[in-house]
Amino acid sequence: MDEMPGKVYLVGAGPGAPDLLTLRATEILKRADVVFHDALVHPRTLELAARAEKIAVGKRSGRHSTAQKFINKRLVDAARDHKIVVRLKGGDPTLFGRAQEEIDALRAAGIDFEIVPGVTAATAASAELGVSLTRRGFARHVVFVTPRAANGERENDWVASVLAADTAVIYMGAGLADAIGAELIKRGKPKDTPLALVESATLPERRVLRGTLADLPELARKTGAGPAVVLLGEVLKAAFAKPAATEEIEALLKRA
Amino acid sequence: MDEMPGKVYLVGAGPGAPDLLTLRATEILKRADVVFHDALVHPRTLELAARAEKIAVGKRSGRHSTAQKFINKRLVDAARDHKIVVRLKGGDPTLFGRAQEEIDALRAAGIDFEIVPGVTAATAASAELGVSLTRRGFARHVVFVTPRAANGERENDWVASVLAADTAVIYMGAGLADAIGAELIKRGKPKDTPLALVESATLPERRVLRGTLADLPELARKTGAGPAVVLLGEVLKAAFAKPAATEEIEALLKRA
Repeated sequence: MDEMPGKVYLVGAGPGAPDLLTLRATEILKRADVVFHDALVHPRTLELAARAEKIAVGKRSGRHSTAQKFINKRLVDAARDHKIVVRLKGGDPTLFGRAQEEIDALRAAGIDFEIVPGVTAATAASAELGVSLTRRGFARHVVFVTPRAANGERENDWVASVLAADTAVIYMGAGLADAIGAELIKRGKPKDTPLALVESATLPERRVLRGTLADLPELARKTGAGPAVVLLGEVLKAAFAKPAATEEIEALLKRA
Repeated sequence: MDEMPGKVYLVGAGPGAPDLLTLRATEILKRADVVFHDALVHPRTLELAARAEKIAVGKRSGRHSTAQKFINKRLVDAARDHKIVVRLKGGDPTLFGRAQEEIDALRAAGIDFEIVPGVTAATAASAELGVSLTRRGFARHVVFVTPRAANGERENDWVASVLAADTAVIYMGAGLADAIGAELIKRGKPKDTPLALVESATLPERRVLRGTLADLPELARKTGAGPAVVLLGEVLKAAFAKPAATEEIEALLKRA
């Protein structure tokens, strides 16, 4: 019996494609004893954790607090039995990953932890579009936001934040496009603001849709069940007419 | 002679530590014929490009447009002579990397390109601090911003963008801390807003300084010449009292 508690690594799995994992995350997964992973993590990423028990946790969206509390508890328990515990999250753990709730639980239990950053969906989507989110003398600030219908939580106004920023990337619940578009237009965002919707960025099934803010509800109806981000702002005007040729590089790497 | 022009990969080198590179970036570097890299890219990352000519381009900050135009031209020229040309940038290419200027030049010359996203300094810094940039019901939007003294460029107001967001990460020129702090306080950001300054995130020489907005000028004077980001917002209250034990994992991986 090992009396020394283990350590929990909150690891970013990146935006989707398994080769957008970092080298550090790869090495930690190879050494992991247990991996608690989001439903959306790529199977090839999980295969890296060859010696680990792999446990799917968390729903795709709309997780309840009770479920999160259960995950927190399982992380603490696992660190008491294992040396290397991984909590593998889509994207980057510190952006919309509910990491803070897990960190608070680990700290309260005296469990050591470390965060391994990852590539977040916003920049994966901009890469897919072949466009920079910032542009010198033109776009110096970019906001990442999850909008929510008013629900009594104490939080600042996401619309004001989108309106103030040069570029906005909305990490959205799939069903909210109508409300998001209507609210932004009502509050003064021009209807013709260039917009792109990227679903399942970096995966073979990805879909890239371009238009303006006024088109958002229509574009959203064309997407499927994959995770999607909406990118909004003048920089999107430069979005390449054809999707970045990610297939080409995938083929190249396979041949190697 | 190969008549077919090559392809330019705009690749994110990540925030500093060489093992925070993605697997995809690693594979592309291994196959690269030429690599044009920022001054700050880690030597071990450059070593991956074993067969490539490596060319340092770009100053650390304050690059002139002429210098950028020269880089643009060299990328286009290189793609006419080589199959795989890499433009390797610190962090993620689409965040404050001046990628759009290079993309526009490549597109105008009819050169194929692809962006490979990377881990950006903001989330590397939050990982270092052991804190999430977002928090459910508390911080739903985070802005990444480069402030600049007014210089006649047509751009929106970076201060308004910071004020509107729950969390802000300022990718800053080292010398601007006094002006940034004064401007934010003058415009109504509370002096006691929790703040952290992270210099050289993920590198052995990193420095993590914590305080409030009022402390920013004093904290900035304690930093050295490394790249630094300033993180600002209530979520920073949860910043771990001790730095994330990155040394431990580095030792662990070395032993493996």
